[in-house]
Amino acid sequence: MFETATATLDWLGVIVFTITGALVASRKQMDFVGFAMLGTATGIGGGTLRDLLLGSPVFWTQRPAYLLACLVVSCAVFFVAHIPQSRYRALIRLDALGLALFAVAGAEKAIQAGASGAVAVVMGVVTATFGGVIRDLLGGDSPVILSREIYASAAGAGAVAYVSLAALGAPRELALGSGFLVALLLRAVSLRRGWTLPRYRPRSRLPYN
Amino acid sequence: MFETATATLDWLGVIVFTITGALVASRKQMDFVGFAMLGTATGIGGGTLRDLLLGSPVFWTQRPAYLLACLVVSCAVFFVAHIPQSRYRALIRLDALGLALFAVAGAEKAIQAGASGAVAVVMGVVTATFGGVIRDLLGGDSPVILSREIYASAAGAGAVAYVSLAALGAPRELALGSGFLVALLLRAVSLRRGWTLPRYRPRSRLPYN
Amino acid sequence: MFETATATLDWLGVIVFTITGALVASRKQMDFVGFAMLGTATGIGGGTLRDLLLGSPVFWTQRPAYLLACLVVSCAVFFVAHIPQSRYRALIRLDALGLALFAVAGAEKAIQAGASGAVAVVMGVVTATFGGVIRDLLGGDSPVILSREIYASAAGAGAVAYVSLAALGAPRELALGSGFLVALLLRAVSLRRGWTLPRYRPRSRLPYN
Repeated sequence: MFETATATLDWLGVIVFTITGALVASRKQMDFVGFAMLGTATGIGGGTLRDLLLGSPVFWTQRPAYLLACLVVSCAVFFVAHIPQSRYRALIRLDALGLALFAVAGAEKAIQAGASGAVAVVMGVVTATFGGVIRDLLGGDSPVILSREIYASAAGAGAVAYVSLAALGAPRELALGSGFLVALLLRAVSLRRGWTLPRYRPRSRLPYN
Repeated sequence: MFETATATLDWLGVIVFTITGALVASRKQMDFVGFAMLGTATGIGGGTLRDLLLGSPVFWTQRPAYLLACLVVSCAVFFVAHIPQSRYRALIRLDALGLALFAVAGAEKAIQAGASGAVAVVMGVVTATFGGVIRDLLGGDSPVILSREIYASAAGAGAVAYVSLAALGAPRELALGSGFLVALLLRAVSLRRGWTLPRYRPRSRLPYN
Repeated sequence: MFETATATLDWLGVIVFTITGALVASRKQMDFVGFAMLGTATGIGGGTLRDLLLGSPVFWTQRPAYLLACLVVSCAVFFVAHIPQSRYRALIRLDALGLALFAVAGAEKAIQAGASGAVAVVMGVVTATFGGVIRDLLGGDSPVILSREIYASAAGAGAVAYVSLAALGAPRELALGSGFLVALLLRAVSLRRGWTLPRYRPRSRLPYN
């Protein structure tokens, strides 16, 4: 049951992020290989960096089914990307969903690999955001992680919630679910309300130093 | 003999890609250190990412001769880059050669490391393309992998040909040679003929969503 | 004592580079999360790539205190970045200091991991420069490593000095100190004097091929 919960989060995250990568490929009118590459890199990018940093075997080299899923999903998007009324809005919403899924799945995998709480939170943020960084860079968009929106902080808050609850001895499903909801709601509400964090304000007399 | 065939492909690929990196440095009129860095990063970049993903020791950390070869080749290009009539054409052709060499060498190394066929194909593509991605990013060019040309797909086709033939029990040299030729010919012919793959065409009423 | 010398260099390098990352965040008027991410990525980026390439465990996954230090330093910069007369000049000078610290610390760690001299020099350069590459890319600046200045070469010279002295049997502190001073002085003097290395000059009739 426990194995299943984590594996499910991981699979859902990979599929959701693959769709966002393929949607960017459709917006850029790429060919099929572009869909497959952008979809796959977005879907597995975050988990790949997490596994490299943790020194764990990279997850998809052990289970090629992930690669085939990325290929099938990218292929499907090639044919149905015209269906959503706004591909941009679908992209943003799925990205929020993937962010929340990977924030807890990444932290969870780090805990299982024996990492401390602080490292687990960083791994949650890395897993949740790096696929999108690759997608935005390869697609030629400005990375959403650098926008003024609440993005990496939502992933961080979800990972902190999960790690804290798990450390306090909460049941695993409760901790995973709470972390997921914290990240998803924080990202969704801040998107809708246009929430941002306070920015640094220069106090010097010179406009730019 | 078998060891030799793989090592030869790897060495040739490293040298050929190092030349392309140094040629970009010459086109950008960099200094000698720029030649060495761009040449080396292009020459060893693809194999480095492959080894990291496979969890194998990074090849050049075990055999520093690779680093010295990259340095010597970059240095040589610094002095002879004015000889080819068109450095751009030399660059494109050598890049196609390196792509085909690394597509089979990368898939071969993955197979030797115990990876499945699907993972081996991905490793062929990663090895063949990542050095060029680094080169183009550091050189400030748009990555050729994102162009509309047949590039990653040529590497993928070569890797698939090699992996399939090897799985069917073909002699290793035949499988390696066939994969190499498939990738090289596909890339060369599509360059000459201007072949591209069909692109995604938006079907919505709005020009951009 | 020896352990201490290396650990001290590493800690100083991480802190100094974290400050440079946070200073870039202040120049871009990012929010607090931007400070934390840019500071941390700059502080630990070089050592992370070094450890991945060496196949060593990534240093901060073993000692989360590094992450907390990056967070605290980034936070402090958020509140005091207005104090230096010129944030740009502070950034350049701290970057030179971090470059020299990491050039020897990176080469030293490679030697300890059993790498050869050539690999140790490359690891020194990678550790010294990669954090800055991440900082400049994420901050939207042109990477200083690609500038015409003496930058990677200063790191390389420091690493060569350290590795050579260590190979000749010099006391470790002497070798570390000499390598550090070579890198720092070379970078500082070339900044002040505007030294550059000779660039490649095209000899063809055509302006650009």
